[in-house]
Amino acid sequence: MKTEWIAVDWGTSHLRAWAMRGDTVLDQAQSDQGMSRVAKGAFQDALLALVEDWLGDAPVDVVACGMVGARQGWVEAPYTAVPSAPVPGLPIRVPGTDPRIRAFVVPGLKQTSPPDVMRGEETQIAGFLDTHPNWDGVICLPGTHTKWAQISAGEVVSFRTFMTGELFDLLRGHSVLQHSVGEGWDDAAFAEAVEDALSKPEQLAARLFGLRAADLLHAQDAGVARARLSGLLIGAELAASRPYWLGQQIAIIGAEGLSAIYAKALQKQGAFVETADATRSTLAGLTKARNLTRQTA
Amino acid sequence: MKTEWIAVDWGTSHLRAWAMRGDTVLDQAQSDQGMSRVAKGAFQDALLALVEDWLGDAPVDVVACGMVGARQGWVEAPYTAVPSAPVPGLPIRVPGTDPRIRAFVVPGLKQTSPPDVMRGEETQIAGFLDTHPNWDGVICLPGTHTKWAQISAGEVVSFRTFMTGELFDLLRGHSVLQHSVGEGWDDAAFAEAVEDALSKPEQLAARLFGLRAADLLHAQDAGVARARLSGLLIGAELAASRPYWLGQQIAIIGAEGLSAIYAKALQKQGAFVETADATRSTLAGLTKARNLTRQTA
Repeated sequence: MKTEWIAVDWGTSHLRAWAMRGDTVLDQAQSDQGMSRVAKGAFQDALLALVEDWLGDAPVDVVACGMVGARQGWVEAPYTAVPSAPVPGLPIRVPGTDPRIRAFVVPGLKQTSPPDVMRGEETQIAGFLDTHPNWDGVICLPGTHTKWAQISAGEVVSFRTFMTGELFDLLRGHSVLQHSVGEGWDDAAFAEAVEDALSKPEQLAARLFGLRAADLLHAQDAGVARARLSGLLIGAELAASRPYWLGQQIAIIGAEGLSAIYAKALQKQGAFVETADATRSTLAGLTKARNLTRQTA
Repeated sequence: MKTEWIAVDWGTSHLRAWAMRGDTVLDQAQSDQGMSRVAKGAFQDALLALVEDWLGDAPVDVVACGMVGARQGWVEAPYTAVPSAPVPGLPIRVPGTDPRIRAFVVPGLKQTSPPDVMRGEETQIAGFLDTHPNWDGVICLPGTHTKWAQISAGEVVSFRTFMTGELFDLLRGHSVLQHSVGEGWDDAAFAEAVEDALSKPEQLAARLFGLRAADLLHAQDAGVARARLSGLLIGAELAASRPYWLGQQIAIIGAEGLSAIYAKALQKQGAFVETADATRSTLAGLTKARNLTRQTA
Protein backbone atom coordinates (compact mmCIF):
# COMPACT_ATOMS: atom_id res chain seq x y z
CA MET A 1 0.00 0.00 0.00
CA LYS A 2 1.25 3.48 -0.77
CA THR A 3 2.84 5.56 1.97
CA GLU A 4 0.68 8.59 2.69
CA TRP A 5 3.02 10.22 5.18
CA ILE A 6 6.03 9.38 7.36
CA ALA A 7 6.12 9.62 11.15
CA VAL A 8 9.57 10.23 12.70
CA ASP A 9 10.75 10.06 16.30
CA TRP A 10 14.25 11.56 16.27
CA GLY A 11 15.91 11.64 19.68
CA THR A 12 19.44 12.16 20.91
CA SER A 13 20.53 8.57 20.35
CA HIS A 14 18.03 7.05 17.93
CA LEU A 15 16.09 7.68 14.71
CA ARG A 16 12.86 5.79 14.16
CA ALA A 17 10.51 6.16 11.20
CA TRP A 18 7.14 4.70 10.28
CA ALA A 19 5.47 4.59 6.85
CA MET A 20 1.87 5.65 7.56
CA ARG A 21 -1.52 5.64 5.85
CA GLY A 22 -3.85 7.72 8.03
CA ASP A 23 -3.19 6.32 11.49
CA THR A 24 -2.19 2.87 10.22
CA VAL A 25 1.45 1.75 10.27
CA LEU A 26 2.50 0.23 6.92
CA ASP A 27 6.19 -0.25 7.63
CA GLN A 28 8.89 0.83 10.05
CA ALA A 29 12.64 1.40 10.11
CA GLN A 30 15.24 2.63 12.58
CA SER A 31 18.90 3.52 12.82
CA ASP A 32 21.43 4.75 15.37
CA GLN A 33 21.64 8.12 13.57
CA GLY A 34 20.36 10.00 16.62
CA MET A 35 20.67 13.76 16.73
CA SER A 36 24.00 13.55 18.61
CA ARG A 37 25.59 11.62 15.69
CA VAL A 38 24.33 13.74 12.81
CA ALA A 39 26.19 16.89 11.75
CA LYS A 40 24.27 20.09 11.09
CA GLY A 41 23.32 19.90 7.41
CA ALA A 42 23.31 16.09 7.25
CA PHE A 43 19.85 15.45 8.70
CA GLN A 44 17.99 15.05 5.44
CA ASP A 45 20.52 12.51 4.13
CA ALA A 46 20.33 10.52 7.37
CA LEU A 47 16.56 10.35 7.06
CA LEU A 48 16.43 9.61 3.34
CA ALA A 49 18.87 6.72 3.80
CA LEU A 50 16.24 5.16 6.06
CA VAL A 51 12.97 5.97 4.23
CA GLU A 52 13.93 6.24 0.53
CA ASP A 53 11.99 3.07 -0.40
CA TRP A 54 8.77 4.65 0.85
CA LEU A 55 8.97 7.70 -1.43
CA GLY A 56 7.32 8.18 -4.80
CA ASP A 57 6.86 10.99 -7.33
CA ALA A 58 4.36 13.06 -5.35
CA PRO A 59 5.79 14.75 -2.24
CA VAL A 60 5.15 12.88 1.01
CA ASP A 61 4.70 14.65 4.35
CA VAL A 62 7.29 13.87 7.03
CA VAL A 63 6.36 14.83 10.60
CA ALA A 64 9.14 14.54 13.19
CA CYS A 65 9.39 15.13 16.92
CA GLY A 66 12.25 15.09 19.42
CA MET A 67 15.70 16.62 19.69
CA VAL A 68 15.74 17.03 15.89
CA GLY A 69 14.04 20.38 16.61
CA ALA A 70 16.92 21.67 18.77
CA ARG A 71 19.22 24.48 17.68
CA GLN A 72 21.79 21.95 16.47
CA GLY A 73 19.10 19.85 14.75
CA TRP A 74 17.47 19.76 11.32
CA VAL A 75 15.54 22.98 11.85
CA GLU A 76 15.16 24.91 15.08
CA ALA A 77 11.57 24.58 16.30
CA PRO A 78 11.36 27.19 19.09
CA TYR A 79 9.81 26.00 22.36
CA THR A 80 6.19 26.87 23.16
CA ALA A 81 5.76 28.28 26.68
CA VAL A 82 3.46 26.47 29.12
CA PRO A 83 0.62 26.59 29.98
CA SER A 84 -0.17 25.32 26.50
CA ALA A 85 -1.73 22.42 24.65
CA PRO A 86 1.14 19.95 24.13
CA VAL A 87 1.00 20.39 20.34
CA PRO A 88 -0.81 23.71 20.02
CA GLY A 89 -0.35 24.50 16.35
CA LEU A 90 1.30 23.86 13.06
CA PRO A 91 4.73 22.15 13.29
CA ILE A 92 7.70 24.04 11.85
CA ARG A 93 8.33 23.47 8.14
CA VAL A 94 11.89 22.49 7.21
CA PRO A 95 12.97 24.77 4.33
CA GLY A 96 14.67 23.62 1.13
CA THR A 97 14.00 19.88 1.36
CA ASP A 98 14.25 17.21 -1.31
CA PRO A 99 11.22 17.58 -3.68
CA ARG A 100 9.98 14.12 -2.69
CA ILE A 101 9.22 15.25 0.88
CA ARG A 102 7.59 18.10 2.81
CA ALA A 103 9.14 17.94 6.30
CA PHE A 104 7.80 19.33 9.59
CA VAL A 105 9.19 19.33 13.14
CA VAL A 106 6.99 19.52 16.24
CA PRO A 107 8.18 22.26 18.68
CA GLY A 108 9.04 21.37 22.27
CA LEU A 109 7.68 22.99 25.41
CA LYS A 110 9.45 25.34 27.81
CA GLN A 111 8.76 26.61 31.30
CA THR A 112 10.32 29.87 32.40
CA SER A 113 10.40 29.32 36.14
CA PRO A 114 11.66 26.97 37.33
CA PRO A 115 13.46 26.73 33.99
CA ASP A 116 12.67 23.50 32.17
CA VAL A 117 12.36 22.16 28.63
CA MET A 118 11.06 19.10 26.79
CA ARG A 119 11.35 17.86 23.20
CA GLY A 120 9.49 14.74 22.14
CA GLU A 121 7.46 14.14 25.29
CA GLU A 122 4.95 16.85 24.26
CA THR A 123 4.07 14.65 21.26
CA GLN A 124 3.53 11.60 23.48
CA ILE A 125 1.33 13.68 25.79
CA ALA A 126 -0.66 14.96 22.82
CA GLY A 127 -1.14 11.41 21.59
CA PHE A 128 -2.25 10.19 25.01
CA LEU A 129 -4.72 13.06 25.43
CA ASP A 130 -6.07 12.48 21.92
CA THR A 131 -7.06 8.96 22.92
CA HIS A 132 -8.21 10.01 26.45
CA PRO A 133 -10.53 12.99 25.92
CA ASN A 134 -11.18 15.22 28.97
CA TRP A 135 -8.36 13.52 30.92
CA ASP A 136 -7.04 15.60 33.84
CA GLY A 137 -4.18 14.51 36.06
CA VAL A 138 -0.45 13.97 35.98
CA ILE A 139 1.59 12.24 33.30
CA CYS A 140 4.94 10.67 34.13
CA LEU A 141 7.29 9.90 31.22
CA PRO A 142 10.19 7.89 32.64
CA GLY A 143 13.48 7.75 30.75
CA THR A 144 16.95 9.25 30.62
CA HIS A 145 15.39 12.55 31.69
CA THR A 146 12.10 11.66 33.34
CA LYS A 147 9.32 14.23 32.91
CA TRP A 148 6.35 14.89 35.17
CA ALA A 149 3.62 16.99 33.54
CA GLN A 150 0.51 18.43 35.16
CA ILE A 151 -2.45 18.26 32.73
CA SER A 152 -5.64 20.26 32.99
CA ALA A 153 -8.28 21.05 30.35
CA GLY A 154 -6.11 19.64 27.57
CA GLU A 155 -3.10 21.80 28.49
CA VAL A 156 0.30 21.13 30.06
CA VAL A 157 0.08 23.47 33.03
CA SER A 158 3.60 22.86 34.39
CA PHE A 159 6.29 20.21 34.20
CA ARG A 160 9.53 19.11 35.84
CA THR A 161 12.45 17.06 34.56
CA PHE A 162 14.50 14.66 36.71
CA MET A 163 17.88 13.30 35.60
CA THR A 164 17.08 9.95 37.22
CA GLY A 165 17.79 7.71 34.23
CA GLU A 166 21.03 9.45 33.36
CA LEU A 167 22.20 9.30 36.99
CA PHE A 168 21.44 5.56 37.04
CA ASP A 169 23.48 4.97 33.88
CA LEU A 170 26.41 7.13 35.05
CA LEU A 171 26.55 5.55 38.49
CA ARG A 172 26.20 1.99 37.20
CA GLY A 173 28.64 2.41 34.34
CA HIS A 174 31.21 4.99 35.40
CA SER A 175 31.34 5.40 39.18
CA VAL A 176 32.92 3.27 41.91
CA LEU A 177 29.55 1.47 42.01
CA GLN A 178 30.34 -0.23 38.70
CA HIS A 179 32.24 -2.82 40.76
CA SER A 180 29.22 -3.59 42.93
CA VAL A 181 26.18 -3.17 40.66
CA GLY A 182 25.57 -5.90 38.08
CA GLU A 183 22.76 -7.67 36.29
CA GLY A 184 19.72 -9.13 38.00
CA TRP A 185 16.98 -7.64 40.10
CA ASP A 186 15.29 -8.04 43.47
CA ASP A 187 11.77 -6.71 43.97
CA ALA A 188 12.00 -6.55 47.75
CA ALA A 189 15.30 -4.64 47.67
CA PHE A 190 13.81 -2.19 45.16
CA ALA A 191 10.70 -1.58 47.29
CA GLU A 192 12.78 -1.13 50.46
CA ALA A 193 15.12 1.35 48.73
CA VAL A 194 12.17 3.37 47.42
CA GLU A 195 10.80 3.61 50.97
CA ASP A 196 14.25 4.58 52.33
CA ALA A 197 14.65 7.35 49.78
CA LEU A 198 11.06 8.60 50.13
CA SER A 199 11.41 8.98 53.88
CA LYS A 200 14.93 10.45 53.84
CA PRO A 201 15.58 11.75 50.32
CA GLU A 202 18.46 13.96 51.47
CA GLN A 203 20.51 10.86 52.34
CA LEU A 204 20.87 9.91 48.67
CA ALA A 205 24.62 10.57 48.23
CA ALA A 206 25.42 8.64 51.41
CA ARG A 207 23.14 5.70 50.59
CA LEU A 208 24.77 5.46 47.16
CA PHE A 209 28.19 4.88 48.70
CA GLY A 210 26.50 2.45 51.07
CA LEU A 211 25.92 0.16 48.07
CA ARG A 212 29.68 -0.08 47.60
CA ALA A 213 30.32 -0.59 51.31
CA ALA A 214 27.61 -3.27 51.57
CA ASP A 215 29.41 -5.16 48.80
CA LEU A 216 32.83 -4.86 50.45
CA LEU A 217 31.62 -5.72 53.95
CA HIS A 218 28.68 -8.04 53.38
CA ALA A 219 29.25 -9.24 49.76
CA GLN A 220 25.86 -7.83 48.72
CA ASP A 221 24.54 -9.49 45.56
CA ALA A 222 25.10 -7.38 42.40
CA GLY A 223 21.45 -7.74 41.32
CA VAL A 224 20.25 -6.63 44.73
CA ALA A 225 22.58 -3.64 44.42
CA ARG A 226 21.10 -2.82 41.00
CA ALA A 227 17.54 -2.91 42.36
CA ARG A 228 18.59 -0.80 45.34
CA LEU A 229 20.33 1.78 43.13
CA SER A 230 17.21 2.05 40.99
CA GLY A 231 15.00 2.24 44.08
CA LEU A 232 17.10 4.96 45.72
CA LEU A 233 17.03 7.15 42.61
CA ILE A 234 13.35 6.60 41.81
CA GLY A 235 12.42 7.03 45.48
CA ALA A 236 14.24 10.36 45.61
CA GLU A 237 12.42 11.40 42.45
CA LEU A 238 9.04 10.43 43.92
CA ALA A 239 9.85 12.41 47.07
CA ALA A 240 10.57 15.48 44.94
CA SER A 241 7.60 15.00 42.61
CA ARG A 242 5.13 14.28 45.43
CA PRO A 243 3.39 17.66 44.94
CA TYR A 244 2.73 16.49 41.39
CA TRP A 245 1.31 13.02 41.99
CA LEU A 246 -0.19 13.02 45.48
CA GLY A 247 -3.96 12.53 45.24
CA GLN A 248 -3.86 12.80 41.44
CA GLN A 249 -4.84 10.53 38.59
CA ILE A 250 -1.52 9.30 37.16
CA ALA A 251 -0.62 8.01 33.68
CA ILE A 252 2.82 6.61 32.92
CA ILE A 253 3.98 6.74 29.30
CA GLY A 254 7.21 4.87 28.71
CA ALA A 255 9.02 1.66 27.85
CA GLU A 256 7.27 -1.38 29.29
CA GLY A 257 9.84 -2.50 31.87
CA LEU A 258 10.63 0.95 33.22
CA SER A 259 6.95 1.92 33.34
CA ALA A 260 6.20 -1.20 35.38
CA ILE A 261 8.91 -0.26 37.91
CA TYR A 262 7.54 3.26 38.32
CA ALA A 263 3.98 1.92 38.56
CA LYS A 264 4.97 -0.53 41.29
CA ALA A 265 6.67 2.21 43.32
CA LEU A 266 3.70 4.57 42.97
CA GLN A 267 1.11 1.91 43.74
CA LYS A 268 2.97 1.15 46.99
CA GLN A 269 2.27 4.78 47.91
CA GLY A 270 -1.44 4.19 47.33
CA ALA A 271 -1.51 6.00 44.01
CA PHE A 272 -3.85 5.01 41.17
CA VAL A 273 -1.75 4.49 38.05
CA GLU A 274 -2.48 3.62 34.45
CA THR A 275 0.21 2.95 31.87
CA ALA A 276 0.31 3.77 28.17
CA ASP A 277 2.66 2.48 25.49
CA ALA A 278 5.32 5.03 24.51
CA THR A 279 5.50 4.19 20.80
CA ARG A 280 1.72 4.15 20.41
CA SER A 281 1.52 7.54 22.16
CA THR A 282 4.24 8.98 19.93
CA LEU A 283 2.45 7.78 16.78
CA ALA A 284 -0.90 9.14 17.97
CA GLY A 285 0.75 12.50 18.70
CA LEU A 286 2.51 12.63 15.34
CA THR A 287 -0.78 11.72 13.63
CA LYS A 288 -2.43 14.65 15.39
CA ALA A 289 0.40 16.97 14.33
CA ARG A 290 0.15 15.67 10.77
CA ASN A 291 -3.57 16.45 10.66
CA LEU A 292 -2.71 20.05 11.60
CA THR A 293 -0.34 20.28 8.62
CA ARG A 294 -3.05 18.97 6.29
CA GLN A 295 -5.60 21.53 7.40
CA THR A 296 -3.25 24.28 6.29
CA ALA A 297 -1.66 22.55 3.28
CA MET B 1 70.86 13.50 54.88
CA LYS B 2 70.09 9.81 55.09
CA THR B 3 66.50 8.60 54.70
CA GLU B 4 65.32 7.03 57.95
CA TRP B 5 61.94 5.87 56.66
CA ILE B 6 59.55 6.42 53.75
CA ALA B 7 55.99 7.71 54.07
CA VAL B 8 53.59 6.65 51.29
CA ASP B 9 50.09 7.85 50.41
CA TRP B 10 48.80 5.36 47.84
CA GLY B 11 45.29 6.11 46.63
CA THR B 12 43.17 4.95 43.72
CA SER B 13 44.64 7.42 41.24
CA HIS B 14 47.94 8.58 42.72
CA LEU B 15 51.10 7.40 44.47
CA ARG B 16 53.00 9.90 46.60
CA ALA B 17 56.11 9.19 48.67
CA TRP B 18 58.24 11.21 51.10
CA ALA B 19 61.78 10.48 52.29
CA MET B 20 61.60 11.08 56.06
CA ARG B 21 63.92 11.54 59.00
CA GLY B 22 61.79 11.48 62.15
CA ASP B 23 58.94 13.83 61.27
CA THR B 24 61.05 15.90 58.86
CA VAL B 25 60.56 15.63 55.09
CA LEU B 26 63.88 15.24 53.24
CA ASP B 27 62.53 14.68 49.74
CA GLN B 28 59.35 13.82 47.90
CA ALA B 29 58.22 12.06 44.72
CA GLN B 30 54.97 11.14 43.04
CA SER B 31 53.60 9.22 40.08
CA ASP B 32 50.28 8.35 38.48
CA GLN B 33 50.71 4.69 39.50
CA GLY B 34 47.60 4.75 41.66
CA MET B 35 46.15 1.51 42.91
CA SER B 36 43.75 1.29 39.93
CA ARG B 37 46.69 1.22 37.49
CA VAL B 38 48.88 -1.31 39.26
CA ALA B 39 48.33 -5.04 38.75
CA LYS B 40 48.30 -7.39 41.74
CA GLY B 41 51.92 -8.37 42.23
CA ALA B 42 53.39 -5.20 40.70
CA PHE B 43 53.09 -2.89 43.70
CA GLN B 44 56.64 -3.24 44.98
CA ASP B 45 58.10 -2.47 41.55
CA ALA B 46 55.87 0.60 41.17
CA LEU B 47 57.07 1.89 44.53
CA LEU B 48 60.77 1.06 44.05
CA ALA B 49 60.77 2.89 40.69
CA LEU B 50 59.82 6.00 42.62
CA VAL B 51 61.97 5.69 45.79
CA GLU B 52 65.03 3.66 44.73
CA ASP B 53 67.37 6.63 45.15
CA TRP B 54 66.47 6.89 48.80
CA LEU B 55 67.44 3.31 49.67
CA GLY B 56 70.76 2.09 51.11
CA ASP B 57 72.16 -1.16 52.46
CA ALA B 58 70.25 -1.27 55.73
CA PRO B 59 66.51 -1.95 55.39
CA VAL B 60 64.34 1.19 55.45
CA ASP B 61 60.80 1.17 56.84
CA VAL B 62 58.04 2.04 54.37
CA VAL B 63 54.68 2.99 55.89
CA ALA B 64 51.78 3.33 53.45
CA CYS B 65 48.12 4.26 53.76
CA GLY B 66 45.20 4.32 51.33
CA MET B 67 43.63 1.95 48.82
CA VAL B 68 46.94 0.05 48.66
CA GLY B 69 45.54 -1.91 51.62
CA ALA B 70 42.46 -3.10 49.69
CA ARG B 71 41.96 -6.72 48.63
CA GLN B 72 43.35 -5.93 45.17
CA GLY B 73 46.26 -3.94 46.65
CA TRP B 74 49.78 -4.73 47.82
CA VAL B 75 48.64 -6.56 50.92
CA GLU B 76 45.12 -6.78 52.30
CA ALA B 77 44.96 -4.78 55.52
CA PRO B 78 41.58 -5.79 56.99
CA TYR B 79 39.36 -2.95 58.19
CA THR B 80 39.16 -2.14 61.90
CA ALA B 81 35.56 -1.77 63.13
CA VAL B 82 34.48 1.54 64.69
CA PRO B 83 34.31 2.76 67.39
CA SER B 84 38.09 2.70 67.34
CA ALA B 85 41.14 4.94 67.44
CA PRO B 86 41.81 5.86 63.80
CA VAL B 87 45.14 4.01 63.81
CA PRO B 88 44.71 1.67 66.77
CA GLY B 89 47.68 -0.63 66.38
CA LEU B 90 50.52 -1.97 64.34
CA PRO B 91 50.12 -1.60 60.56
CA ILE B 92 50.10 -4.81 58.49
CA ARG B 93 53.52 -6.02 57.39
CA VAL B 94 53.89 -6.78 53.67
CA PRO B 95 55.46 -10.24 53.35
CA GLY B 96 58.38 -11.11 51.08
CA THR B 97 59.60 -7.63 50.23
CA ASP B 98 62.90 -6.54 48.70
CA PRO B 99 65.62 -6.77 51.41
CA ARG B 100 66.17 -3.00 51.25
CA ILE B 101 62.70 -2.28 52.69
CA ARG B 102 60.37 -3.36 55.49
CA ALA B 103 56.90 -2.34 54.27
CA PHE B 104 53.74 -1.74 56.32
CA VAL B 105 50.20 -0.79 55.34
CA VAL B 106 47.79 1.05 57.65
CA PRO B 107 44.36 -0.70 57.86
CA GLY B 108 41.20 1.21 57.01
CA LEU B 109 38.09 1.56 59.16
CA LYS B 110 34.70 -0.06 58.67
CA GLN B 111 31.24 0.49 60.08
CA THR B 112 28.75 -2.37 60.06
CA SER B 113 25.50 -0.41 60.07
CA PRO B 114 24.94 1.64 58.05
CA PRO B 115 27.66 -0.11 56.03
CA ASP B 116 30.61 2.16 55.32
CA VAL B 117 34.36 1.98 54.79
CA MET B 118 37.39 4.28 54.60
CA ARG B 119 41.01 3.79 53.57
CA GLY B 120 43.49 6.64 53.93
CA GLU B 121 41.28 9.11 55.78
CA GLU B 122 41.85 7.26 59.07
CA THR B 123 45.55 8.20 58.77
CA GLN B 124 44.70 11.88 58.20
CA ILE B 125 42.38 11.80 61.21
CA ALA B 126 45.12 10.19 63.33
CA GLY B 127 47.54 12.89 62.24
CA PHE B 128 45.10 15.67 63.02
CA LEU B 129 44.31 14.24 66.46
CA ASP B 130 48.01 13.78 67.20
CA THR B 131 48.54 17.51 66.77
CA HIS B 132 45.22 18.42 68.49
CA PRO B 133 45.20 16.47 71.78
CA ASN B 134 41.81 16.03 73.49
CA TRP B 135 39.98 17.29 70.41
CA ASP B 136 36.29 16.27 70.25
CA GLY B 137 33.98 17.11 67.39
CA VAL B 138 33.37 16.26 63.76
CA ILE B 139 35.94 15.95 60.99
CA CYS B 140 34.96 16.48 57.36
CA LEU B 141 37.34 15.14 54.70
CA PRO B 142 36.06 16.45 51.34
CA GLY B 143 37.11 14.69 48.13
CA THR B 144 35.89 12.17 45.56
CA HIS B 145 34.17 10.33 48.40
CA THR B 146 33.71 12.88 51.18
CA LYS B 147 33.85 11.47 54.71
CA TRP B 148 32.24 12.83 57.87
CA ALA B 149 33.64 11.33 61.07
CA GLN B 150 32.39 11.81 64.61
CA ILE B 151 35.34 11.99 67.05
CA SER B 152 35.16 11.48 70.80
CA ALA B 153 37.91 10.65 73.30
CA GLY B 154 40.41 9.98 70.54
CA GLU B 155 38.15 7.49 68.73
CA VAL B 156 36.18 7.54 65.50
CA VAL B 157 32.71 6.83 66.86
CA SER B 158 30.88 6.70 63.53
CA PHE B 159 31.34 7.94 59.99
CA ARG B 160 29.48 8.43 56.72
CA THR B 161 30.67 8.66 53.12
CA PHE B 162 29.06 10.86 50.46
CA MET B 163 29.77 10.43 46.74
CA THR B 164 29.61 14.19 46.25
CA GLY B 165 32.96 14.66 44.46
CA GLU B 166 32.41 11.72 42.15
CA LEU B 167 28.88 12.90 41.31
CA PHE B 168 30.27 16.36 40.49
CA ASP B 169 32.90 14.89 38.14
CA LEU B 170 30.43 12.54 36.43
CA LEU B 171 27.79 15.22 35.94
CA ARG B 172 30.26 17.83 34.71
CA GLY B 173 32.17 15.49 32.43
CA HIS B 174 29.75 12.85 31.23
CA SER B 175 26.13 13.99 31.56
CA VAL B 176 24.00 16.35 29.47
CA LEU B 177 25.30 19.07 31.82
CA GLN B 178 28.71 18.90 30.14
CA HIS B 179 27.28 21.29 27.53
CA SER B 180 26.26 23.85 30.16
CA VAL B 181 28.88 23.62 32.93
CA GLY B 182 32.29 25.10 32.19
CA GLU B 183 35.18 26.87 33.88
CA GLY B 184 34.81 29.81 36.20
CA TRP B 185 33.00 30.34 39.48
CA ASP B 186 30.44 32.60 41.11
CA ASP B 187 30.33 32.89 44.91
CA ALA B 188 26.76 34.19 45.05
CA ALA B 189 25.46 31.40 42.81
CA PHE B 190 27.25 28.81 44.95
CA ALA B 191 25.80 30.23 48.19
CA GLU B 192 22.29 30.39 46.73
CA ALA B 193 22.50 26.81 45.46
CA VAL B 194 23.68 25.56 48.87
CA GLU B 195 20.67 27.26 50.47
CA ASP B 196 18.33 25.81 47.84
CA ALA B 197 19.61 22.30 48.40
CA LEU B 198 19.67 22.61 52.20
CA SER B 199 16.05 23.69 52.32
CA LYS B 200 14.77 21.22 49.69
CA PRO B 201 17.40 18.48 49.35
CA GLU B 202 14.95 16.08 47.73
CA GLN B 203 14.74 18.36 44.67
CA LEU B 204 18.33 17.56 43.65
CA ALA B 205 17.65 15.54 40.48
CA ALA B 206 15.21 18.18 39.22
CA ARG B 207 17.49 21.12 40.03
CA LEU B 208 20.32 19.39 38.19
CA PHE B 209 18.34 19.33 34.96
CA GLY B 210 17.41 22.94 35.71
CA LEU B 211 21.06 23.86 35.07
CA ARG B 212 20.70 22.60 31.51
CA ALA B 213 17.35 24.31 31.00
CA ALA B 214 18.65 27.62 32.42
CA ASP B 215 21.40 27.50 29.80
CA LEU B 216 19.01 26.74 26.93
CA LEU B 217 16.38 29.30 27.97
CA HIS B 218 18.38 32.05 29.67
CA ALA B 219 21.95 31.41 28.39
CA GLN B 220 23.18 30.95 31.96
CA ASP B 221 26.94 31.51 32.27
CA ALA B 222 28.96 28.27 32.35
CA GLY B 223 30.90 29.37 35.45
CA VAL B 224 27.68 30.21 37.28
CA ALA B 225 26.42 26.76 36.31
CA ARG B 226 29.60 25.18 37.73
CA ALA B 227 29.22 27.03 41.03
CA ARG B 228 25.53 26.07 41.16
CA LEU B 229 26.27 22.40 40.44
CA SER B 230 28.85 22.38 43.23
CA GLY B 231 26.46 24.21 45.56
CA LEU B 232 23.56 21.84 44.88
CA LEU B 233 25.67 18.75 45.58
CA ILE B 234 27.42 20.15 48.66
CA GLY B 235 24.14 21.59 49.96
CA ALA B 236 22.48 18.18 49.65
CA GLU B 237 25.43 16.66 51.49
CA LEU B 238 25.18 19.22 54.29
CA ALA B 239 21.44 18.53 54.59
CA ALA B 240 22.16 14.83 55.01
CA SER B 241 25.15 15.31 57.34
CA ARG B 242 23.39 17.90 59.53
CA PRO B 243 23.07 15.43 62.44
CA TYR B 244 26.87 15.22 62.31
CA TRP B 245 27.82 18.89 62.25
CA LEU B 246 24.98 20.82 63.89
CA GLY B 247 26.24 22.42 67.07
CA GLN B 248 29.60 20.63 66.82
CA GLN B 249 33.19 21.74 66.58
CA ILE B 250 34.15 21.06 62.94
CA ALA B 251 37.54 20.45 61.34
CA ILE B 252 37.94 20.17 57.58
CA ILE B 253 40.92 18.20 56.29
CA GLY B 254 41.34 18.46 52.54
CA ALA B 255 42.81 20.21 49.53
CA GLU B 256 42.94 23.97 50.02
CA GLY B 257 40.39 25.10 47.41
CA LEU B 258 37.80 22.43 48.19
CA SER B 259 38.19 22.91 51.95
CA ALA B 260 37.57 26.64 51.54
CA ILE B 261 34.32 25.95 49.66
CA TYR B 262 33.06 23.57 52.35
CA ALA B 263 34.12 26.02 55.06
CA LYS B 264 32.22 28.86 53.40
CA ALA B 265 29.06 26.78 53.10
CA LEU B 266 29.25 25.64 56.73
CA GLN B 267 30.05 29.10 58.08
CA LYS B 268 26.92 30.41 56.33
CA GLN B 269 25.02 27.95 58.52
CA GLY B 270 26.58 29.48 61.60
CA ALA B 271 29.03 26.64 62.14
CA PHE B 272 32.48 27.15 63.65
CA VAL B 273 35.03 25.60 61.28
CA GLU B 274 38.78 25.14 61.31
CA THR B 275 40.74 23.74 58.38
CA ALA B 276 43.82 21.53 58.33
CA ASP B 277 46.15 20.73 55.45
CA ALA B 278 45.55 17.28 53.98
CA THR B 279 49.19 16.44 53.21
CA ARG B 280 50.42 17.59 56.60
CA SER B 281 47.73 15.50 58.30
CA THR B 282 48.65 12.45 56.22
CA LEU B 283 52.34 12.80 57.12
CA ALA B 284 51.56 13.28 60.82
CA GLY B 285 49.37 10.14 60.71
CA LEU B 286 51.99 8.08 58.91
CA THR B 287 54.62 9.28 61.41
CA LYS B 288 52.40 8.09 64.22
CA ALA B 289 51.92 4.71 62.49
CA ARG B 290 55.66 4.46 61.92
CA ASN B 291 56.34 5.01 65.60
CA LEU B 292 54.07 2.05 66.34
CA THR B 293 56.16 -0.16 64.06
CA ARG B 294 59.35 0.93 65.80
CA GLN B 295 58.04 0.07 69.26
CA THR B 296 57.58 -3.51 68.16
CA ALA B 297 60.51 -3.82 65.77
